[in-house]
Amino acid sequence: MADSKLLPSPGGDPVAVETLLQDVFGIVVDEAIRKGTSASEKVCDWKEPEELKQLLDLELQSQGESQEQILERCRAVIRYSVKTGHPRFFNQLFSGLDPHSLAGRIITESLNTSPYTYEIAPVFVLMEEEVLKKLRALVGWSSGDGVFCPGGSISNMYAINLARYQRYPDCKQRGLRALPPLALFTSKECHYSINKGAAFLGLGTDSVRVVKADERGKMIPEDLERQISLAEAEGAVPFLVSATSGTTVLGAFDPLDAIADVCQRHGLWLHVDAAWGGSVLLSQTHRHLLDGIQRADSVAWNPHKLLAAGLQCSALLLQDTSNLLKRCHGFQASYLFPQDKFYDVALDTGDKVVQCGRRVDCLKLWLMWKAQGGQGLEQRIDQAFALARYLVEEIKKREGFELVMEVAPVLKERMVKEGSMMIGYQPHGSHGNFFRMVVANPTLTCADIDFLLNELERLGQDL
Amino acid sequence: MADSKLLPSPGGDPVAVETLLQDVFGIVVDEAIRKGTSASEKVCDWKEPEELKQLLDLELQSQGESQEQILERCRAVIRYSVKTGHPRFFNQLFSGLDPHSLAGRIITESLNTSPYTYEIAPVFVLMEEEVLKKLRALVGWSSGDGVFCPGGSISNMYAINLARYQRYPDCKQRGLRALPPLALFTSKECHYSINKGAAFLGLGTDSVRVVKADERGKMIPEDLERQISLAEAEGAVPFLVSATSGTTVLGAFDPLDAIADVCQRHGLWLHVDAAWGGSVLLSQTHRHLLDGIQRADSVAWNPHKLLAAGLQCSALLLQDTSNLLKRCHGFQASYLFPQDKFYDVALDTGDKVVQCGRRVDCLKLWLMWKAQGGQGLEQRIDQAFALARYLVEEIKKREGFELVMEVAPVLKERMVKEGSMMIGYQPHGSHGNFFRMVVANPTLTCADIDFLLNELERLGQDL
Repeated sequence: MADSKLLPSPGGDPVAVETLLQDVFGIVVDEAIRKGTSASEKVCDWKEPEELKQLLDLELQSQGESQEQILERCRAVIRYSVKTGHPRFFNQLFSGLDPHSLAGRIITESLNTSPYTYEIAPVFVLMEEEVLKKLRALVGWSSGDGVFCPGGSISNMYAINLARYQRYPDCKQRGLRALPPLALFTSKECHYSINKGAAFLGLGTDSVRVVKADERGKMIPEDLERQISLAEAEGAVPFLVSATSGTTVLGAFDPLDAIADVCQRHGLWLHVDAAWGGSVLLSQTHRHLLDGIQRADSVAWNPHKLLAAGLQCSALLLQDTSNLLKRCHGFQASYLFPQDKFYDVALDTGDKVVQCGRRVDCLKLWLMWKAQGGQGLEQRIDQAFALARYLVEEIKKREGFELVMEVAPVLKERMVKEGSMMIGYQPHGSHGNFFRMVVANPTLTCADIDFLLNELERLGQDL
Repeated sequence: MADSKLLPSPGGDPVAVETLLQDVFGIVVDEAIRKGTSASEKVCDWKEPEELKQLLDLELQSQGESQEQILERCRAVIRYSVKTGHPRFFNQLFSGLDPHSLAGRIITESLNTSPYTYEIAPVFVLMEEEVLKKLRALVGWSSGDGVFCPGGSISNMYAINLARYQRYPDCKQRGLRALPPLALFTSKECHYSINKGAAFLGLGTDSVRVVKADERGKMIPEDLERQISLAEAEGAVPFLVSATSGTTVLGAFDPLDAIADVCQRHGLWLHVDAAWGGSVLLSQTHRHLLDGIQRADSVAWNPHKLLAAGLQCSALLLQDTSNLLKRCHGFQASYLFPQDKFYDVALDTGDKVVQCGRRVDCLKLWLMWKAQGGQGLEQRIDQAFALARYLVEEIKKREGFELVMEVAPVLKERMVKEGSMMIGYQPHGSHGNFFRMVVANPTLTCADIDFLLNELERLGQDL
């Protein structure tokens, strides 16, 4: 009896299930991994939306399809998708394909559990604790708290919510109407999630006070002081400063020590959005960019960006040891967190978050770290800085590169349709559209940078 | 040059990478899939936390480890994890292991992209649109909007945020202080995310007005009327009712038509939290339980629960066609959503959400649906109802089953430590602790239900 339903199998046949998964895995290795990371293949086989819809035959029907049809669908999905592990994919703050992380992700999917209780995720509850401890140690904290969030935006929102709860615990029950008007501070180079978060949390975007940044994109601490005074003069209560370590467009690192001084003077919660730059803490050579981060109250750090841990791997780290996360977010649902369990219920992490079910995001980072070691990861960071430096030097040697700015949208269209590479562009301040080069893929070499520059020249030679 | 860096490989050797992934995949098939779904294996090899820490050797070191060590770690992670695909795992509202969904998840991980722009996720932007359209059609809507969220809790929060934004668009900029006190309504059987959401969104849990439920756990519409009047008399502005289709503990379905009548009379946003029960819409036989859902403004539906699509697969569906999602959540970041793109930027979904990067959650459901067809999925739902009915009948035949209630924590400890099965328990109202049986795994048979009852008798025979 038991044998006949080993698996939820098509036709009740476990052998067919294993064959299906073996076949799909073979397709993944061939198409997504081997071809998908090969410089001689396209980054993406670009199709216009209407054509792609036809090619994919997306409609869901009443009748199921054969195994052969399903395998053909798997091939098509991969064929027309962007290969973010491709050496010429520079378009996002994530790229590259780490095999150990991918292995961890496949195991995660096969186990399909949620780390909200020790009971149903014993390995991952303990592992998450260990990984967070390691990340906190790199920040400079020997104790604290934390949790993995579905992305850096949610991590930033958590920080804002925790800061206001710490100051006004009443808020949880009585809401913002019971509070004075609040003000939070961040530079004009901050990630847009600070504004999205202020709106979502009911504070409103008006509560976000914009601090000036210098020409490199770093927050100006003197202007932070000015903005705090201004807010207070207008009757608002400052409660949080969100500094950025690695801004989205310019990659700037805010001067954390000077900002921490201001926060200390005014008794403000210091949050550091290090979603992009946090991984630099692994590098002895470059971690000085984040000097002062140990003075923060909270840090958002996304190893899925510079460490290529896979979407999503976003840690929110806290210096707090007073159980603030659970006090702020907890609601003690009796069906999930009865207190009469046979193990220490402090291990149940579900009340740290505003989610209920939550994905396991620690294994992929843990397994990659075990395989590479801290040293291996450090080398990746140092290599990324070296390649960025190489890029700057090479650009200086070439004529015309500053002048191509206004043609970025045209070059972008050409590169995507050819599938030769992908880079993001955007305007910034008084500058028109320019390409933002992201060097995050751990397999990149100088040859890839040379390719990039040659390709930009080739694509724009008639402009 | 290109060949030597095909992959971010240990030792720069792409063959080693493929070997690693093949080996890991073999371990997954053996341990997580074959053994993990076999009734003759344990649901979990239970260890106390301190012992498990020792066994796993979690600490992250500076030195990397050999391939053999990494593979041994993969085996240990699976060995000590709970097998949620096991036929005796009844502990959560998700269970079972669908092979096509797992195939979709492995492809998703190998492609590692975010569906915020068409440019970097052409296949998944179109696929998400198609899957959401299908789910909306089952709700009864021929048009509308929607998005996949990281869990039903976030979907519920979105609904609350959208409802208040629709009524008070000013809220986004000026915050809740610019608004009158708001009130939302839900039954005492609602999921705790409604309260967590009210706190997170700055409304405060006081804004959640609790409506009585009958003895079966269904919201009483007459009491909803009473609570609305009461809130208004206290000077609060009612704006949303959250009904539940499939409550967490009792599995009750609120009477949606009667609740929709109340909402219509008072001009309130009707949200239906159908995270658990939404999948019943696939069954012609049982979908009447959700009659009236087509009158909702928003619906939260988690195919990762009753359809076993894999964590997480949580759709928020909207009847709205006025671009409310983007207007409410959007912030038009110029680096991600420049308007001078070479394709229709309406395809970029990133501004529908408060996240930035977001996981691809549609492929696993789409591929499973393509393989099973709507008919196959409908059979699963009907089978779950049939098994629940069988369970009730069998319990009636056995003596002593009503009386074991107060021993639930003891039986739970025994079953987990033996690894024979897993069921959740909780108190409810005047009832003490009782077991909540969840019949979600699509491979379950009557024999599994018999096992469950026999096992409960065996575990409790000395009590």
